[in-house]
Amino acid sequence: MRIVVALGGNALLERGQPMTAEQQRTNIRTAATQLAPVAEGNELVVSHGNGPQVGLLALQAAAYEEVKAYPLDVLGAQTEGMIGYMIEQELGNVLPAERPFASILTMVEVDPADPAFQNPTKFIGPVYEREVAERLAAENGWAIKADGAKWRRVVPSPRPQRIFEIRPIRWLLEHGCVVVCTGGGGIPTMFHPGTRRLIGAEVVIDKDLASALLAEELGADLFVMATDVDAVYRDWGTPTQQAIGRTSPDELATMSLAAGSMGPKVQAAVEFVNRTGRAAAIGTLAQLGGVVAGELGTRVEPAAVPAGASR
Amino acid sequence: MRIVVALGGNALLERGQPMTAEQQRTNIRTAATQLAPVAEGNELVVSHGNGPQVGLLALQAAAYEEVKAYPLDVLGAQTEGMIGYMIEQELGNVLPAERPFASILTMVEVDPADPAFQNPTKFIGPVYEREVAERLAAENGWAIKADGAKWRRVVPSPRPQRIFEIRPIRWLLEHGCVVVCTGGGGIPTMFHPGTRRLIGAEVVIDKDLASALLAEELGADLFVMATDVDAVYRDWGTPTQQAIGRTSPDELATMSLAAGSMGPKVQAAVEFVNRTGRAAAIGTLAQLGGVVAGELGTRVEPAAVPAGASR
Repeated sequence: MRIVVALGGNALLERGQPMTAEQQRTNIRTAATQLAPVAEGNELVVSHGNGPQVGLLALQAAAYEEVKAYPLDVLGAQTEGMIGYMIEQELGNVLPAERPFASILTMVEVDPADPAFQNPTKFIGPVYEREVAERLAAENGWAIKADGAKWRRVVPSPRPQRIFEIRPIRWLLEHGCVVVCTGGGGIPTMFHPGTRRLIGAEVVIDKDLASALLAEELGADLFVMATDVDAVYRDWGTPTQQAIGRTSPDELATMSLAAGSMGPKVQAAVEFVNRTGRAAAIGTLAQLGGVVAGELGTRVEPAAVPAGASR
Repeated sequence: MRIVVALGGNALLERGQPMTAEQQRTNIRTAATQLAPVAEGNELVVSHGNGPQVGLLALQAAAYEEVKAYPLDVLGAQTEGMIGYMIEQELGNVLPAERPFASILTMVEVDPADPAFQNPTKFIGPVYEREVAERLAAENGWAIKADGAKWRRVVPSPRPQRIFEIRPIRWLLEHGCVVVCTGGGGIPTMFHPGTRRLIGAEVVIDKDLASALLAEELGADLFVMATDVDAVYRDWGTPTQQAIGRTSPDELATMSLAAGSMGPKVQAAVEFVNRTGRAAAIGTLAQLGGVVAGELGTRVEPAAVPAGASR
């Protein structure tokens, strides 16, 4: 099987854990231990989140005032280097010695005409007092919004359109490589509407949607989103809440699901299944083997054709 | 031809230029314009320096005191992401649309028994007053040395032994990819002497020696070091200084060369030529085409067998 596993940001750095390199490495070591058995006998692609990491780089850049902070696309590229390296080094410790692995930097195309550019929604970087935020916004051309009592920069989250390095990723898979790519939803890249030159975009691409696109373009048999929640739940937070096992896009559309952090995952799973007719799964990283096998977590598959229906 | 071009740190960010993202991108755009014609009809691998960039990340990390600065191997991985991204995006603007390109993160093995570990020599990060440097050294286990009137951290510079991702790099070349890799001499990685686990090493690997190893392991026909000096000079800085055109490792050994920044390049060229019997070249990035063609810069080739000598 060809399998794409998207490691959630929370799977790599749990809420409340310190942002140290040691903590990240400890968590990534655990992830590698889960990934190694999945690599055995399968083609494996690993993508990952970068929310806490890009936040740290933004804070560090803001703290050092001698050089203007680098744009979000460049910070995203830095996190692909940082996290990709730690994942592949720890994979190197648990994969059979002869199994090749590589991390490929991944630029993901967004459309400058995407309506998201008219409505920035994603908070990024430090919180500020309103006056400071307004001054920074004027200086840097930022959009800002209230985040509780404080103010923060917001950026657009346009849809991922294309993965520039899809051919190299495919070629490495065909050679048996475990490939780490599309970290943080990819490095946002677009064709400048005027010059048609490739440029970076100061946006955040949803990591699950980018990973779904990756899985689709690679013809993956299975697309897994590994997070810190064991399944998608119906009626979450109510007395009747229930973990969803096997389901279909049509059935999911009829359910009452908590919006929250599972929303993008459910959307990514539904899009992948509808476009490819193949299976997507959502579950915990700690149970990855069971999730891949279809025994644990939530499995989204095309609706079974009812018995007796004409095909 | 299979060609490895190592872009010097000074070729990407000239001495005295501001460290901004815009300046780096402008310089990298110029580099891409030089690289594109070399890619035409050839297999091309691009490596690059990261000195100023890793310095900036170290300063930013030191300025944000909430989270302990990440180790040098992780910072190196971040610069491979940052610089690799900008190189490949600008290459994407000048290569033919169908030509694939990719940046591969590169871990380079060093030997924990390398004598360099007993004698740290490479300055890294900010300068401090002696008392501050001594406190930081005690807190972090650093070695420190005087750098003029101030003090700085020093780290070892062991020899590069192996490139972990050499097979994926080779496979991508065989598919016609332009490959960016081995940035900053590679991410320093070693097997822990006790546990035999792969770990990061807090060292700096010489970028030219790592690129020479890359060129050797790829069976490159030509290894080019592109810098901001037009050639290697004999008797540099004296009235009789003279640019060296074609030469051999044996002839170079007889010459009086300035140590300085060209020393590692000459050593890397000599090692590559002696080990492979193929050619190495040193020249300016601005004249890359002429340097590749052997018309400009310094060309190091095996000594010609004297006429009449028995073979």
